[in-house]
Amino acid sequence: MLIALLPGDGIGPEVIAEAVRLLDTLGIDGLAFEEAPVGGAAYKASGHPLPDSTLDLAKRADAILFGAVGDPDCDALERHLRPEQAILGLRKELALFANLRPANLFPDLADASALRPEIARDIDVMIVRELNGDVYFGEKGMRTTEDGLREGYDIMSYNEAEVARIARTGFETARARRGKLCSVDKANVLETSQLWRDVVIEISADYPDIELSHLYVDNAAMQLVRAPGQFDTIVTGNLFGDILSDLASMCAGSIGMLPSASLDAQGKGLYEPIHGSAPDIAGQGKANPLATILSAAMMLRYSLQLPEPADRIEAAVSNALAGGLRTGDLGGTASTREAGDAVIAAL
Amino acid sequence: MLIALLPGDGIGPEVIAEAVRLLDTLGIDGLAFEEAPVGGAAYKASGHPLPDSTLDLAKRADAILFGAVGDPDCDALERHLRPEQAILGLRKELALFANLRPANLFPDLADASALRPEIARDIDVMIVRELNGDVYFGEKGMRTTEDGLREGYDIMSYNEAEVARIARTGFETARARRGKLCSVDKANVLETSQLWRDVVIEISADYPDIELSHLYVDNAAMQLVRAPGQFDTIVTGNLFGDILSDLASMCAGSIGMLPSASLDAQGKGLYEPIHGSAPDIAGQGKANPLATILSAAMMLRYSLQLPEPADRIEAAVSNALAGGLRTGDLGGTASTREAGDAVIAAL
Ligand SMILES: CC(C)[C@H](C(=O)O)[C@@H](O)C(=O)O
Ligand SMILES: CC(C)[C@H](C(=O)O)[C@@H](O)C(=O)O
Repeated sequence: MLIALLPGDGIGPEVIAEAVRLLDTLGIDGLAFEEAPVGGAAYKASGHPLPDSTLDLAKRADAILFGAVGDPDCDALERHLRPEQAILGLRKELALFANLRPANLFPDLADASALRPEIARDIDVMIVRELNGDVYFGEKGMRTTEDGLREGYDIMSYNEAEVARIARTGFETARARRGKLCSVDKANVLETSQLWRDVVIEISADYPDIELSHLYVDNAAMQLVRAPGQFDTIVTGNLFGDILSDLASMCAGSIGMLPSASLDAQGKGLYEPIHGSAPDIAGQGKANPLATILSAAMMLRYSLQLPEPADRIEAAVSNALAGGLRTGDLGGTASTREAGDAVIAAL
Repeated sequence: MLIALLPGDGIGPEVIAEAVRLLDTLGIDGLAFEEAPVGGAAYKASGHPLPDSTLDLAKRADAILFGAVGDPDCDALERHLRPEQAILGLRKELALFANLRPANLFPDLADASALRPEIARDIDVMIVRELNGDVYFGEKGMRTTEDGLREGYDIMSYNEAEVARIARTGFETARARRGKLCSVDKANVLETSQLWRDVVIEISADYPDIELSHLYVDNAAMQLVRAPGQFDTIVTGNLFGDILSDLASMCAGSIGMLPSASLDAQGKGLYEPIHGSAPDIAGQGKANPLATILSAAMMLRYSLQLPEPADRIEAAVSNALAGGLRTGDLGGTASTREAGDAVIAAL
């Protein structure tokens, strides 16, 4: 089984290194790694954030372990050359339409959340975010109005097939959890959302065992802070999912802790921590590698059908935290390497 | 000075009644009220959520005090007949482009926030949201794809004049506060946001005394939970402002507490609580009227140039809370009427 390693920018290489060290320690038969540049690092090396050879490796691989992209040096580049285009390109080219972002609080980190401990403790939500459509991938550009003014525009849209596909992922995910699905949209204003809501309701006929509810996105953002324990699984579009998943993970504590999976229809996936490239602390050995280590666990479970080592990794992370492991984002002083060591020791 | 009263749906009439009683008690010279139906109530009475006579009153008035719109009975109506169209129509027809939404915690309500008290206490942010453009007002509809699929679409756009206008409101607002402005967009993905960011930077040349920063919307949502005290004034577009302002107010405690102003270029405004029509508790005399009472204070300050009675109202609310006033949303049992009485007594 070939794993593509795409470390990317900033702290990406540091956190990927710890995940690889852990996977090596597990000694899983037949696991091979191949690395390629992506993001700002790839642009600097070869003029494009997602070089053909990198995309090719991603296509050949059985799963992709991704660090982070984002580099302030590249902010002034034309849009198609910016680091972020690499992750958007991978999602689209590999048809990774379903982004699964769990947000839950490790019991030992109750203090890391900005929420009151009694509220934070209840968080156990899976956000299912659509990744291949919405205003992210519609026609966009700059144009001039009739009055000669500069105008930026982006077309938001979803068709019924796109919504039905992610809705099914949402219902299936809820079924494997606690049986509750909340669909988030802005149907009181947007036609894209009205279609979304109509189709989610149509698909719900196939899932009579799942309790379906709907929230407007402004209300959903509030409810995630007010009473996150009310949510089991949330399904939403690309843009609202971007905002709500970051919000949910912050409610659950540090975003240095949370993994994500981006899956295609066959279960092939790209796995990445939800945090960014954190240029401010890059190269200092301070980054928290746990989100990437937990992403590797998701990879074993979802794409490689190896639930057993996945469970072992998650238990080891939990035990390492219980044993006092804290990186800087969690108020401690452990280095990236020490965090990796602590998880390996807890295996 | 003519005040248009538009109570609307659900708890709207109950909370407006208390604000009017308070304004009456203040005995402000020359204040006249005229009431008109809006939202689902107007639809049921006359077939349209924003009847011509209501729009006409809103145009004639010096300021508008608005309750809430939203009625589950109307969910299945065509979009242009739904209650929400009334508030969208008023914002657009009256060119109310600048929505000011303060979020701050009354010291006596530190317990009402889901955030840890030491984090919640620091919240004092003004969100300046653009109200006349963005994906709210672009072309939208249902169409059929080449493959015969239903597709919903909405065009997001901003031109440079729209951005410059709200950016100036943002800079001026920051100048009257603590001198810090954070502009929120999604420029790493959206061209509309790229234009937004470019224009905000251009306008900043006229405000060298203001410290300007930029955040992506996903990060802004996280930061509002993690460390809201870092923000002074936030300026953002219509859609992101909808989400972030509700989020900020929830961080500050109950949304039953927070007012808003929607202003045109001359300072004429519509004032409304940020909460909705709450159909589940409508007609029971349980709603918290404080957000509407505080909206009336904003009205006196911004549209009627009466800062002195505005200060008196705000102080009376604060004193009533210090005296123990708590409606249901704040964990107490005071009725809507008792809450109004408590504020009047504290005047
Ligand atoms: C980097 C950016 C384009 C990306 C997104 O908006 O999807 C990121 O915020 C994420 O959520 O993975
Ligand atoms: C009712 C709805 C159309 C409205 C909006 O989205 O603007 C509301 O959420 C608000 O924020 O005032």
